[in-house]
Amino acid sequence: MKITASAIGLLAAIPSVLGVWPIPRTLKEGSSNSEVWWVNIKPSGNVGSIVSNAIQRYQDLINKESFQSPVTWNVTQVKTNGSFGGVSLSVESTDETLNLDTDESYTLDVPVSGEATLKAKTPYGALRGLETLSQLVVTNGASKAIRNTPIHIEDSPFFPHRGIQLDTARNYLPISALKRTIDAMSYNKLNVLHWHIVDSQSWPVESKTFPDLQKNGAYSAKETYSHAEVRDLIQYAKGRGVRIIPEFDVPGHTYIVGKARPDLMSCMNMQPNWDQYAAEPPSGQLNIAKPETIEFTNKLVKEYTGLFTDNVFHLGGDEVNRKCWKEDPDVQKYLAAHPGEDVETLLASWYSKVHEYLGSLNRTAYTWEETLFHSTYEPPKDTIVQTWIDEQSIPKTVSKGYRSVASPASYYYLDCGHGAWLSNWVAGNSWCDPFKTWMKIYSFDPLTGITDPAQQKLVLGGEVQLWAEQSDETVLDNRLWPRAAAMAETTWSGKKDATGRVRTTEEVASRLHEQRFRMVDRGISAGPMQPVWCVRNPGHCNLP
Amino acid sequence: MKITASAIGLLAAIPSVLGVWPIPRTLKEGSSNSEVWWVNIKPSGNVGSIVSNAIQRYQDLINKESFQSPVTWNVTQVKTNGSFGGVSLSVESTDETLNLDTDESYTLDVPVSGEATLKAKTPYGALRGLETLSQLVVTNGASKAIRNTPIHIEDSPFFPHRGIQLDTARNYLPISALKRTIDAMSYNKLNVLHWHIVDSQSWPVESKTFPDLQKNGAYSAKETYSHAEVRDLIQYAKGRGVRIIPEFDVPGHTYIVGKARPDLMSCMNMQPNWDQYAAEPPSGQLNIAKPETIEFTNKLVKEYTGLFTDNVFHLGGDEVNRKCWKEDPDVQKYLAAHPGEDVETLLASWYSKVHEYLGSLNRTAYTWEETLFHSTYEPPKDTIVQTWIDEQSIPKTVSKGYRSVASPASYYYLDCGHGAWLSNWVAGNSWCDPFKTWMKIYSFDPLTGITDPAQQKLVLGGEVQLWAEQSDETVLDNRLWPRAAAMAETTWSGKKDATGRVRTTEEVASRLHEQRFRMVDRGISAGPMQPVWCVRNPGHCNLP
Repeated sequence: MKITASAIGLLAAIPSVLGVWPIPRTLKEGSSNSEVWWVNIKPSGNVGSIVSNAIQRYQDLINKESFQSPVTWNVTQVKTNGSFGGVSLSVESTDETLNLDTDESYTLDVPVSGEATLKAKTPYGALRGLETLSQLVVTNGASKAIRNTPIHIEDSPFFPHRGIQLDTARNYLPISALKRTIDAMSYNKLNVLHWHIVDSQSWPVESKTFPDLQKNGAYSAKETYSHAEVRDLIQYAKGRGVRIIPEFDVPGHTYIVGKARPDLMSCMNMQPNWDQYAAEPPSGQLNIAKPETIEFTNKLVKEYTGLFTDNVFHLGGDEVNRKCWKEDPDVQKYLAAHPGEDVETLLASWYSKVHEYLGSLNRTAYTWEETLFHSTYEPPKDTIVQTWIDEQSIPKTVSKGYRSVASPASYYYLDCGHGAWLSNWVAGNSWCDPFKTWMKIYSFDPLTGITDPAQQKLVLGGEVQLWAEQSDETVLDNRLWPRAAAMAETTWSGKKDATGRVRTTEEVASRLHEQRFRMVDRGISAGPMQPVWCVRNPGHCNLP
Repeated sequence: MKITASAIGLLAAIPSVLGVWPIPRTLKEGSSNSEVWWVNIKPSGNVGSIVSNAIQRYQDLINKESFQSPVTWNVTQVKTNGSFGGVSLSVESTDETLNLDTDESYTLDVPVSGEATLKAKTPYGALRGLETLSQLVVTNGASKAIRNTPIHIEDSPFFPHRGIQLDTARNYLPISALKRTIDAMSYNKLNVLHWHIVDSQSWPVESKTFPDLQKNGAYSAKETYSHAEVRDLIQYAKGRGVRIIPEFDVPGHTYIVGKARPDLMSCMNMQPNWDQYAAEPPSGQLNIAKPETIEFTNKLVKEYTGLFTDNVFHLGGDEVNRKCWKEDPDVQKYLAAHPGEDVETLLASWYSKVHEYLGSLNRTAYTWEETLFHSTYEPPKDTIVQTWIDEQSIPKTVSKGYRSVASPASYYYLDCGHGAWLSNWVAGNSWCDPFKTWMKIYSFDPLTGITDPAQQKLVLGGEVQLWAEQSDETVLDNRLWPRAAAMAETTWSGKKDATGRVRTTEEVASRLHEQRFRMVDRGISAGPMQPVWCVRNPGHCNLP
């Protein structure tokens, strides 16, 4: 056992998990402290290329990182009575399939002295364990240490779907920003990037089937994503345990399609009364009376299910406007020729043809709640319904037997609270005011109002949303972080601790501060939650 | 007259002032276009060192800059029928004094061909003219041009005080961030950085008189400002026409003084009911019953009026808490011994001794409105009163014969709208909700409700405020910009155009977009106001 000569200090009353975010599901810790010199992570047997790369990445990160946040500014140097001897890492299976069913569990044992062991069922469990390990190592004077050894962690996610939605249509995000966000997601054990890649405002992604979509629809030749770039990004994300689920929102939110295919459209850019035809300008929807729009959409589905590898594919379906179609000459002509039909039957039939085709490609449909609740269409039972309008939509969805991902605007919309953006709306506020603080986000429980365990199982998790009307790369990091981290913990660790008690924002604030400052140290411009004085004086900045 | 062979295009219907923000007070333009190759700015006679340095800086900037914003993405290349032959710059006086009375006017003439002339009364007028020139030069295909020549601009500010308040006490800002902000201010012709340098949470600035203030009060040895750094920053700001007015807020907001001088304090860090003693934690005020606090404050005033060169010095005076003193044993003892006195007379006497001493050092006091309205103290008539609580405070201040700087929280507080920050206030909103959009800020007129021209003259201008409970360097640029630019225009150009019509947000939106993207191009992470689609389609993203 090695004892550092200079390391004479008090054992601080700060547990070793101070820095681990999200908090592990179960953790036992001792009362020793282990010195950390050079971290060597050794694969035990074949671990596959994703884990091999991650080993290299985390070894570099841990050995380079010398992070001391304002939370721990006055933590005294601890006397170490053991020495960390590296990590032996093993995985049961090297299958690198990443989807909703992927096992992300891991077990991490850090003895007082000698080699730690990290065991996982899959490569993705190993990634989660490596992240935890990197957060256990803290600075200790001139050296580093892991406190409160021996440590035994058994960890696994509460929900399988823990995501962020980014919108690259209202304003473009460069690939570098997406990669940085994926890095940050991995620091928080988030595993889904829901990529709202196109919308009425722009079509940045290459289409080989319909090249004019990008040619006429991207903001510029630079503000684009080629197939090659998308493939690279998917690999990058996979290497960090993040699935990329693309959203091609149909039949609404499609004005930009009309710049390439005006023949397919209804109510293109109605002005100045766009508000009667769309939730925001410019208006424009695929013309559901034309069989060509189904053919067009299915060709897109074919192309992009070939590009995006995830077995879940988001078809949008939100904020569809009926007036747009009711006033469309083609729709009117069709309905006149088909007595008994109306816009609702047309839409339901349109959905069914697109969803059916998606199913035939072995993809699971992901769709906004309107497809289920605001249309007469009955989606296949394996459809994943993303709820956003109301928290009550979650229990409603699962009571109908559908799986739900929770994205209630009242809690999880990160764009809210920045005021109106229409150029002449001086006194306008944000439709989804107020701003959602990390505390508000942390307070939400996706299982609220659901008592039946079978129905609870249908809640897959949550996704915070960053719609991009008022954001682009300049604000990306601080709109996302640390607020997305708040949901990361409630969806990974669950709302309750091991004793069944709901965690309060007050008790987790210090850990989230630690995580926020760590992220800043790792190059993510996460915004501050409080004055540093409050960071250093836990409990002194509470509402009395 | 040189005609570029390749430059065959339509004259776009976009005036040359598209890119100038804030808009010049008077401008005449022609219908020619002048090609710009290499910009050479020549001083005519002695212009002094500030202008000499600015000439070099702007020459580099203009020659390097090749900026085309999304606003002008489809502006066709114009046929040029003249060639810009550089600028001859002259100033009437090389006196580099910078204060409230500094003349910032300039005249800029750009002929169709040949040399432009920029004339100013002072070096600071020359700086403003150089900034305008830099914004007139636009990309024109592979080359650059100034459109709509000949141009004649006569420009001067509507208000003499146009500022930003930054708070480096709740969270620290490095000197580099302050310099970047000063650069951005100069791009918007703002001229006052109100530096709220210390507060209850931290004391980052060096004190030679009381070294323990910084030693015990700075967040860390790195999060500090030495005298040398402050002097350098003042010079840097002066070189860009920005005055630095420091605020040493007394007698409230001073908890941190107690870490060096506990003997001077009342109600130090009352917990958990800090809210009865202060507007935010930690509580703590200078003990006004002790003559030592006057002596202490005056020594600070002496030191910092020596360091900060501006002839205006902010003494704070906001949010003073009476209960803090009423319960203080020293105050109680004093009042028991002095019948007829009370906390109000004590406070008024305390203010008078500090303000009198400041006056004896030939400094003008700048103070929050509470000093005037919420105390019985009657400040000297030359005191500048910063109003924030209510828009009505501005007319109230000038009707009492005092000068006013407008900072109404309802319009000019850039920190508002980010929710509660007390760790346990899950459902809490920001006290000054909602978020102030650029449109809300642009809509405010500091002269509202003041009809007497003599009283109007007492309104010196405006200052947007960025309190730092929820901000630090990670969010600085996008909290400030482009919103501070909105106030920059209304305070430089005035609320009305030459015909007397109040400018609308709708009509200025494109110019502000242009300025926002230019700032991003110049390295300032100003946030986006809208989707790029709206930027490109003026009027199509209006509330119907």
